[in-house]
Amino acid sequence: MALIVHKYGGTSMGSTERIRLVAKRVAKWARAGHQMVVVPSAMSGETNRLLGLAKELAPAKPGDAYQRELDMLASTGEQVSVALLAIALQGEGMESVSYAGWQVPILTNSAHTKARIESIDDQKVRVDLAAGKVVIVTGFQGVDEAGNITTLGRGGSDTSAVAVAAAMKASECLIYTDVDGIYTTDPRVVPEARRLQTVGFEEMLEMASMGSKVLQIRSVEFAGKYKVPLRVLSSFTPWDIDIEIEAKSGTLITFEEDENMEQAIVSGIAFNRDEAKVSVLGVPDTPGIAYQILGAVADANIEVDVIIQNVSKDGKTDFSFTVHRNDYARTVDLLKEKVLPGLGATEITGDAKICKVSIVGIGMRSHVGVASKMFRCLSEEGINIQMISTSEIKTSVVIDEKYMELAVRALHKAFELDQPAA
Amino acid sequence: MALIVHKYGGTSMGSTERIRLVAKRVAKWARAGHQMVVVPSAMSGETNRLLGLAKELAPAKPGDAYQRELDMLASTGEQVSVALLAIALQGEGMESVSYAGWQVPILTNSAHTKARIESIDDQKVRVDLAAGKVVIVTGFQGVDEAGNITTLGRGGSDTSAVAVAAAMKASECLIYTDVDGIYTTDPRVVPEARRLQTVGFEEMLEMASMGSKVLQIRSVEFAGKYKVPLRVLSSFTPWDIDIEIEAKSGTLITFEEDENMEQAIVSGIAFNRDEAKVSVLGVPDTPGIAYQILGAVADANIEVDVIIQNVSKDGKTDFSFTVHRNDYARTVDLLKEKVLPGLGATEITGDAKICKVSIVGIGMRSHVGVASKMFRCLSEEGINIQMISTSEIKTSVVIDEKYMELAVRALHKAFELDQPAA
Repeated sequence: MALIVHKYGGTSMGSTERIRLVAKRVAKWARAGHQMVVVPSAMSGETNRLLGLAKELAPAKPGDAYQRELDMLASTGEQVSVALLAIALQGEGMESVSYAGWQVPILTNSAHTKARIESIDDQKVRVDLAAGKVVIVTGFQGVDEAGNITTLGRGGSDTSAVAVAAAMKASECLIYTDVDGIYTTDPRVVPEARRLQTVGFEEMLEMASMGSKVLQIRSVEFAGKYKVPLRVLSSFTPWDIDIEIEAKSGTLITFEEDENMEQAIVSGIAFNRDEAKVSVLGVPDTPGIAYQILGAVADANIEVDVIIQNVSKDGKTDFSFTVHRNDYARTVDLLKEKVLPGLGATEITGDAKICKVSIVGIGMRSHVGVASKMFRCLSEEGINIQMISTSEIKTSVVIDEKYMELAVRALHKAFELDQPAA
Repeated sequence: MALIVHKYGGTSMGSTERIRLVAKRVAKWARAGHQMVVVPSAMSGETNRLLGLAKELAPAKPGDAYQRELDMLASTGEQVSVALLAIALQGEGMESVSYAGWQVPILTNSAHTKARIESIDDQKVRVDLAAGKVVIVTGFQGVDEAGNITTLGRGGSDTSAVAVAAAMKASECLIYTDVDGIYTTDPRVVPEARRLQTVGFEEMLEMASMGSKVLQIRSVEFAGKYKVPLRVLSSFTPWDIDIEIEAKSGTLITFEEDENMEQAIVSGIAFNRDEAKVSVLGVPDTPGIAYQILGAVADANIEVDVIIQNVSKDGKTDFSFTVHRNDYARTVDLLKEKVLPGLGATEITGDAKICKVSIVGIGMRSHVGVASKMFRCLSEEGINIQMISTSEIKTSVVIDEKYMELAVRALHKAFELDQPAA
């Protein structure tokens, strides 16, 4: 018997038929002797429907008063879900009780529409669990000290589930999604992509930030901070699948580095074609240049990803960085108008048709030669590398967009990711 | 400048277009210098939609656990409304803030789905009003001492509005509805029916209980208890109607009996064809008989309205009462099976094709001959009276259903209700 947290997404809660299946699955876990806490999202489409009504009434405005009302509004989606799931469980003969975030309470700061969880009181939930009830808690929302409803932002239900699991010291937090785990890379690009049975927390962060989109990145950070064992698994298995099999399915995200588990050098290949490259050429190599360039970009609220500055030649250097493709034109205009004149740089160039490909793996830390193996592989395929960026567990290259699939497939094979881990 | 409470029904909140019109009307009142508290219902159809989802998942069950979840579920309808109205007001340039019942808080007992308000804390609302904000409070719901969301039952938003008005000592509580006031009788039956400018609180209670359905009866009782001036008026007037005209429109429900206002002897004719008559004939006239008959009926949760027992003859009497037409067959069966055998009565008879017609008026208290005028009028029309029941401000008769319209029209004319009050 263990304390288990289940999290179900909007698709799983999308209709009364699907809610009934969730209830049957949860009831199975409870009947197997587990103490169950469930965090469901709003029914799919509901949050958008509600925010759409708000937009019809007044265009989105900054300012707390408006954002506060958006939270009042959007939080009802999850409240409907918890009540319906509690009712469905009662229909299955299970005792159950639902709580909105403010009832637990899940305390957050007051940053409406993007609040952060500060503390969770587990008292009520423990009493209910001890009484044999399944407890259902709204995802996505909490309450601030003044008693205002807050929401955590899109995908916040993952974070809620992990936070509740952390507060309850749950044995495991199971995130049911529409994929059956974390893969070595996107199976749509590489059919040989393999599901990982386990993936390290930091690797998962790198994968998530590269748009694998399975888990909200904040929830992974949260899980890492509190060492919550987190499992991503499919909500499409039959509800009555053997619980022993289900409990081992999907991908477990681990936080214990020196566990003696199989640890591949490279765990996966991530890629992203949402970026564009901008270069400022012939910049005088004097202190403060990076700030002059990137400060102006940051002031315009443009996020920068990879940044490269090469060694200078003849007192001049080239400065390159990547931004989201949607911000490309704005960035180039900004630099030409505001930065170039005062900088003494030669030229602004750029390319929106690039992509970033990364190899990710905890094992890289202790293995030299991983990056060079990547570069050799790409070279053998005749792919020119435009930019390189490395971290302890990731090596990323920026290449021409048209080579993306080729690069991902070649790297997947070169690092033997299509082979089961030894 | 006064503190005013507005209440808008589900139709008024039925779409973003209509919500915008409500916002414009409220903004007009606020700009005229009034402190405004608004209590809107859920968007029309929303409560039924939500409860329909619950029914799909588990058939309605007694028991607190299920009822508690229904309240979690249904209360979201009003929360959506308050947030949208707050946003619409901000769109009109008015500062506004919304509160769910638990945030005010509106404390109720724990009788889920039919809770009663116990107290309202006006602190937060007063602070916001003093800061120039329009305050929007959910109708229909509150919170119990343990922090569970409760609802007041259908039509509860009227009661919420009156309760908030009472707690805030509002100058007036304006209930915007789809009719433009209280009429001397149903205009669909008597085209000459006149809108009353004022109606006494007790008269209104008698009218409401007869199914005039304009106001939830509990809200009128509440208004009476706390002497909240209550006005029923149309939500279909243009939002920019002159505020002086709007403030005097509709029907004002008054609580001051000895105000020197024009006081007709009879204020209105109410009628109801939802009832059926049941008679127990030849009952031995001994103590405890009424209890034997009606106790069994009450135990079966059947509500009884008019009760008549005539003087006995030869130690036997006839005992008659009316029940809702839907309960007619069940009542007759029950009496035949369980009551008749032990009672020594001769026979159970009944008639489902009856109706009740009432004349209602505070003035009846001090005027003799009102009832006899009613009976003469019906006699002149050749209508046989089957049962009679009287109270201080009401005289009701049960007659054959087919004479209902005839009776109502004749009485409306006989009591000169088609003439403007002197």
